[in-house]
Amino acid sequence: MLNFESDYLEGAHEKILANLVATNEEKLTGYGNDIYCQNARQKIQAACEKPDAHIYFISGGTQTNALVIASMLNKTEGVLAAETGHITTHETGAIEFTGHKVLTLPQKVGKISATDVKQYMKNYWNDGNRDFAVQPGMVYISQPTEYGTIYSKKELTDISAVCDEYKIPLFVDGARLGYALASSENDVTLAELADLVDVFYIGGTKVGALLGEAIVFTKNNTPAHFVPNMKQQGALLAKGRVLGIQFDTLFTDNLYFEISKNAIELADLLKAGLKEKGYQFYLDSPTNQQFIILENKKMEKLKEQVAFGFWEIFDDSHTVIRFATSWATKRADIEALLAIM
Amino acid sequence: MLNFESDYLEGAHEKILANLVATNEEKLTGYGNDIYCQNARQKIQAACEKPDAHIYFISGGTQTNALVIASMLNKTEGVLAAETGHITTHETGAIEFTGHKVLTLPQKVGKISATDVKQYMKNYWNDGNRDFAVQPGMVYISQPTEYGTIYSKKELTDISAVCDEYKIPLFVDGARLGYALASSENDVTLAELADLVDVFYIGGTKVGALLGEAIVFTKNNTPAHFVPNMKQQGALLAKGRVLGIQFDTLFTDNLYFEISKNAIELADLLKAGLKEKGYQFYLDSPTNQQFIILENKKMEKLKEQVAFGFWEIFDDSHTVIRFATSWATKRADIEALLAIM
Amino acid sequence: MLNFESDYLEGAHEKILANLVATNEEKLTGYGNDIYCQNARQKIQAACEKPDAHIYFISGGTQTNALVIASMLNKTEGVLAAETGHITTHETGAIEFTGHKVLTLPQKVGKISATDVKQYMKNYWNDGNRDFAVQPGMVYISQPTEYGTIYSKKELTDISAVCDEYKIPLFVDGARLGYALASSENDVTLAELADLVDVFYIGGTKVGALLGEAIVFTKNNTPAHFVPNMKQQGALLAKGRVLGIQFDTLFTDNLYFEISKNAIELADLLKAGLKEKGYQFYLDSPTNQQFIILENKKMEKLKEQVAFGFWEIFDDSHTVIRFATSWATKRADIEALLAIM
Amino acid sequence: MLNFESDYLEGAHEKILANLVATNEEKLTGYGNDIYCQNARQKIQAACEKPDAHIYFISGGTQTNALVIASMLNKTEGVLAAETGHITTHETGAIEFTGHKVLTLPQKVGKISATDVKQYMKNYWNDGNRDFAVQPGMVYISQPTEYGTIYSKKELTDISAVCDEYKIPLFVDGARLGYALASSENDVTLAELADLVDVFYIGGTKVGALLGEAIVFTKNNTPAHFVPNMKQQGALLAKGRVLGIQFDTLFTDNLYFEISKNAIELADLLKAGLKEKGYQFYLDSPTNQQFIILENKKMEKLKEQVAFGFWEIFDDSHTVIRFATSWATKRADIEALLAIM
Repeated sequence: MLNFESDYLEGAHEKILANLVATNEEKLTGYGNDIYCQNARQKIQAACEKPDAHIYFISGGTQTNALVIASMLNKTEGVLAAETGHITTHETGAIEFTGHKVLTLPQKVGKISATDVKQYMKNYWNDGNRDFAVQPGMVYISQPTEYGTIYSKKELTDISAVCDEYKIPLFVDGARLGYALASSENDVTLAELADLVDVFYIGGTKVGALLGEAIVFTKNNTPAHFVPNMKQQGALLAKGRVLGIQFDTLFTDNLYFEISKNAIELADLLKAGLKEKGYQFYLDSPTNQQFIILENKKMEKLKEQVAFGFWEIFDDSHTVIRFATSWATKRADIEALLAIM
Repeated sequence: MLNFESDYLEGAHEKILANLVATNEEKLTGYGNDIYCQNARQKIQAACEKPDAHIYFISGGTQTNALVIASMLNKTEGVLAAETGHITTHETGAIEFTGHKVLTLPQKVGKISATDVKQYMKNYWNDGNRDFAVQPGMVYISQPTEYGTIYSKKELTDISAVCDEYKIPLFVDGARLGYALASSENDVTLAELADLVDVFYIGGTKVGALLGEAIVFTKNNTPAHFVPNMKQQGALLAKGRVLGIQFDTLFTDNLYFEISKNAIELADLLKAGLKEKGYQFYLDSPTNQQFIILENKKMEKLKEQVAFGFWEIFDDSHTVIRFATSWATKRADIEALLAIM
Repeated sequence: MLNFESDYLEGAHEKILANLVATNEEKLTGYGNDIYCQNARQKIQAACEKPDAHIYFISGGTQTNALVIASMLNKTEGVLAAETGHITTHETGAIEFTGHKVLTLPQKVGKISATDVKQYMKNYWNDGNRDFAVQPGMVYISQPTEYGTIYSKKELTDISAVCDEYKIPLFVDGARLGYALASSENDVTLAELADLVDVFYIGGTKVGALLGEAIVFTKNNTPAHFVPNMKQQGALLAKGRVLGIQFDTLFTDNLYFEISKNAIELADLLKAGLKEKGYQFYLDSPTNQQFIILENKKMEKLKEQVAFGFWEIFDDSHTVIRFATSWATKRADIEALLAIM
Repeated sequence: MLNFESDYLEGAHEKILANLVATNEEKLTGYGNDIYCQNARQKIQAACEKPDAHIYFISGGTQTNALVIASMLNKTEGVLAAETGHITTHETGAIEFTGHKVLTLPQKVGKISATDVKQYMKNYWNDGNRDFAVQPGMVYISQPTEYGTIYSKKELTDISAVCDEYKIPLFVDGARLGYALASSENDVTLAELADLVDVFYIGGTKVGALLGEAIVFTKNNTPAHFVPNMKQQGALLAKGRVLGIQFDTLFTDNLYFEISKNAIELADLLKAGLKEKGYQFYLDSPTNQQFIILENKKMEKLKEQVAFGFWEIFDDSHTVIRFATSWATKRADIEALLAIM
């Protein structure tokens, strides 16, 4: 049975496991203050070309989103996000649980536009009754998006400029950031991304780690009380080493970037193969998630040999399905999948 | 200066003030347990033809919405509402402050449809990943809507049937309920409304009272812990008499219904007059709020003589403005307004 | 039947009702922006000798406490209060509902001490693990306390100095503030109180109003977003006039202070009479609440003729009961009560 | 430098690492639905002799406490806990962040008594004004406690009986449960514990795992919506395997119990050695945490050679310090420590 259900099917990169084993008996202090967390921070600062960046390690993506958003917003502020954003649709109201509203913007292929952000901000500040509206206090985007698409440098620069104009932070959910950076269509380096945003996170869970996300406050701008916020929201791991060692490994010798390439190369191979066979794509994704529209009967048959993601109903007789590659996907599996399709 | 800015410009109906004065020296127990609250409850039960209804009196509408919704939902449930619903747009995230997401549905002239509610419920329950989505646990509608439109008996019956099918409560925000009931286009009696919904509130603030809303749980169905919920959300008034005396008065000799008629008669007069003069309406409202599209220069000039509500920008050179009548509006004022326009 | 159950048994002072009637037909703008709210603010500023004070009117005490505390604290901060404080024990967790912990301090006759506040602050800031503790971000006291006792100028000055030292606001719950100010034992003027604290509220519900509390930010120090906070927590009344007219009346010609004196004079009369008759007091209260320890059988008999408050069980055969006087209490009632006892 | 600072200094038991490595390339489904989570559940059910128990795996203790408590309480309920309970003092208000109050009870050597729980419940239900109090809706205890002490079977049975009488769940925080079970003073088996409580968690982070806690709902009694609650509170790990594999390992061949014994044997050795040397204990702990009272100068000197936990100030010249042993502590380290002391 082939499995392209998600990009978190396997454990961790072998070097991570090796380092967990190698350091296992060291007695280390807790809560992210150990030497491996420190090393990881320095390496991420270097990779971002931001020596002043503040970095925190968290177990999972939903927790990271809820933590960053709740710690940066005042009580009456909300966060602007695409109507298809992960926080909008797939986190069981984790943001609202912290008391904040997700303010939705229209999307195209998973992306919001600087124009729409600006219009929202203008409308808010022009509204004589704005005390009765949730104040837009932050912009959230995903890179790549939930549909595998990526923001160009121009698009990010434009959104960033609007955020600067209205003095609100720009937050990038990088659960799959490695796959955006490795995409042949990408024109934004990690350092440029760090310049353009106020806070982002580098996803580990979907890119080589057992678990873990690295939050980067890019400009010496950690919100006051952030560590207490972490503890209060249940996001402060006692054995911070578990996250530190993994990110230290991932940011040694460009491992994070190297393994991301594997996902992209194989996604490109799959995409080319599916195109050649005449499959219809739901949208054009340059990263590790590929969405095709399949006739339902064909889909049912495919299920017998391949695990994949059901995305959404397309019409009465067709469904959008997703194939995800990852750092761990093997070329032979792609070839086998193409042979089946 | 004429003033049609809102329907809460004046104090209270003179009978209410008279009764506040007449009972002022009586020593009454607090927190809604006094004889006037009891009388008011009985009269509202009778008006709704629901002897088992449970009734609670609250100071204001936003508080009422936050209280009803938070007390009826589990932590991972949200409330379905129109994208133009009051809780969606004009309450500074009061629902999210209690931890719950407002799940939005498209609207036409301020109304949602049973079809859209049903589709949302179906999608949720068909979603294999629904544990990651906020569960729709309640439907919220306003009667009349924020645009002055009203749900017909057929529309309400259809929405009610979907709610029954999915076993979720239907909640009606009746901040202006009197004006819906008095509308010539209305075909739903108060008793029928009470039959069709699980909980609604009868607005006093905008219909004759100094302040106050009466929550009606129609079917012996007050949620557990409701009075503690009221206290916890700051909604339990020490001198409950202030609300009890007012609703006792409003539901004596049909006062609530009688004074609502005044608003409608004068709104109809205004509407006819404006139509005759060729003004363009933003939509067709059968209640006390009338929305017209005005050329901006004309609007500026009108401001010198009349206070009104700015609703929204229509296009570069036009604005939607609102005239609101109320139980207290005088015929002479309508005539004066029409003379000016 | 005599009734000394609470200090919110009657409606409002007759001048308040007269002014509500006199202004009833005026068309006034909403949400606290009307002329009566403005007048009331100026008169309260004058009474406090604080021309820069910011003043907001709220419906009830629990709502006021939850609003002030939630709007002034960061998410990981809590509020220090007596273990017998109203927010600690009698508001159904309204503060926790907003996400904040009430950090309790020991009390004597309802009061906390500057020494205990200072020790708490020192311990917190000396704690190497303080990121895992709730940060004490505010001090809450009641004047008079829930036991009728009052803080002296010395005591308030000392607590205020600790708050200044640690840069945290001091908040005074003045639900019965008039009765503290009118007490013969009081040595703190309203202006001195305003000097010593950062925010307090002047209770109307228990001192002459139908409902209403006036929040005073004493030093041009309203927290950012306060009006949105009010709306979000359901505390912004549409017809702000209802509160404005009442406080305008209460602060005209010293009415608030004059009517408070009545409660104190009659409480003093009652206290003297009960002492003379040999009743045992639970504690020595210089304000309008008097607590005595009564043998249970005697209490049962008393119930037949007098309504009073059950406070707490004293021992197997005795109970602490409370008699409350108010602005509206009549001398004849005190005499009748003393005749019965 | 010797290190007895905490019981989470090392990584994980070698068998856990070996199994993580061995299973690393298997493609497994996410969110706790993989085969290793299933195996771990069955083994824990067997160890608890509760085939109907429901088991969920979570990353950390604070998150677990906040999740269990928030998912089991209604909005106006709070949780009873010792004034020294972990949720009371060391979780930065994580429980209050979810809207719930921690209601504190007095403690002796870290434990609460059935008598005090019963008195609290009685007082609440006898209180005529209980709508204004937070309803005690759950009891939280730690086994062992934050002071290393353990509840006897009799004590647990008594508390359990009060909870049954008042129909509220009993929740046991077992962050160090292995160390209680391994104590020579312990008289409660895991199966008996599971009988007596409604929900508890088996700590992994401090007992052999890299991270992870296993929540056990003992009686087919998972609260409705629990998985959505997990997601909403950021507690649902994508790669659930990371937790499943670890608990599968810990509950194979009694590993969890065996490694716990090491901590206790070495703590007993340390305790005996310190007693022999005449050190004064802060209290008598039968588990892996040992608290002694040290003269401050001596403490400063000790710091040069040994890392330990500062617990609290004892008096002007003495401090309470903690030595913690764990599953990974070596006999040679205890001997070295005793040689130094």
